Amino acid sequence: MLTLFTYYRSSAAFRVRIALALKGLDYDAVPVHLQRDGGQHRTAEFAARNPARLIPALDVDGSVLTQSLAILEYLEETHPEPPLLPVGALARARVRALALAVACDMHPLNNLRVLRYLAGELKLDEERRSRWYRHWVETGFDALEAMLRRDRPEGPYCHGERPGLADCCLVPQVFNARRFDIPLEPYPSILAVHDACMRLAEFERAAPAAQADAE
Amino acid sequence: MLTLFTYYRSSAAFRVRIALALKGLDYDAVPVHLQRDGGQHRTAEFAARNPARLIPALDVDGSVLTQSLAILEYLEETHPEPPLLPVGALARARVRALALAVACDMHPLNNLRVLRYLAGELKLDEERRSRWYRHWVETGFDALEAMLRRDRPEGPYCHGERPGLADCCLVPQVFNARRFDIPLEPYPSILAVHDACMRLAEFERAAPAAQADAE
Repeated sequence: MLTLFTYYRSSAAFRVRIALALKGLDYDAVPVHLQRDGGQHRTAEFAARNPARLIPALDVDGSVLTQSLAILEYLEETHPEPPLLPVGALARARVRALALAVACDMHPLNNLRVLRYLAGELKLDEERRSRWYRHWVETGFDALEAMLRRDRPEGPYCHGERPGLADCCLVPQVFNARRFDIPLEPYPSILAVHDACMRLAEFERAAPAAQADAE
Repeated sequence: MLTLFTYYRSSAAFRVRIALALKGLDYDAVPVHLQRDGGQHRTAEFAARNPARLIPALDVDGSVLTQSLAILEYLEETHPEPPLLPVGALARARVRALALAVACDMHPLNNLRVLRYLAGELKLDEERRSRWYRHWVETGFDALEAMLRRDRPEGPYCHGERPGLADCCLVPQVFNARRFDIPLEPYPSILAVHDACMRLAEFERAAPAAQADAE
């Protein structure tokens, strides 16, 4: 029995929704609104599930897993087919590095709590907040584009003929960048992977607009 | 043949040095100074190794691995003994979540390039930069302390009687916090794990002060 605590626009939750869809796993979605009620993830009730007060969290028969990449690795270990990671340690390291280039080097700098700190504590105006956002997307996508072009096997996805862990991270990051109107022409490899993924029903179903809590 | 591109004070490089020491693997260390020459990691020469221009990178017989956690997983897959991850998918998910709570939720917000942006682009004075630093350390350690207390098997380390993936991340983060004089009394579990780790020769050998490039 799987219950996902999710928010339609959270890109970390989006990663997990893609992985669940790719693995063909059914789950109940419990929406946790990050802006309503001062942030439903900040309540004591939610902290009892995830003390880090972050989305997503996946309840597996009463055990609560947190951190999207840890959840993806868990799903891979417990439901190996279809695989999210390729065969071979070097190939797996490549895919994990692509995923982490998004999850560590991009997303943490531009998520809601950071943007709130920039506005609230630092009193940055919208123009300087946009410049911050764009700077880290561009820095991250410059790296990701270069990494994607390197040691890449044939195929439309980040690593070959099958979408996997890195694609689960890349696609939500492109959604975010578009929401903030970042020009993506300099990143043809990233866009091509995104487009290939979004032709798959699993990605479509996991996307923000397809969620019950979408606004 | 392993060559680690490292900087003594980089906490991501420190993670990899710990893992290499725990696995008993010999390596050549090539120092890449993040501040000298405008940042030796930003040169074209280094970008040819790691297009993301980030430390650490591990050259394995000519293949360059990047992203510290991807490198740790690679070392675990290729040199399984002693293990950095426990047996059992739920336990492994717990350890990975602890590691990612540092690697995604803390370190990216307070690393050198972000502190530089705060000073250079945003012209924040030292007091506001310190408040930023402290805010994210405290937010992160509040979460990590609560996560550590949950579902924790007996033993002095993050997960039981043997140091692993999470300890590789926790210890460098404590070093960083101390360097910036963040009060750590509210985090007894984190400090106890740190102290247990630092009694081990492997952690001592991996620490910033023991590196050839230490200043």
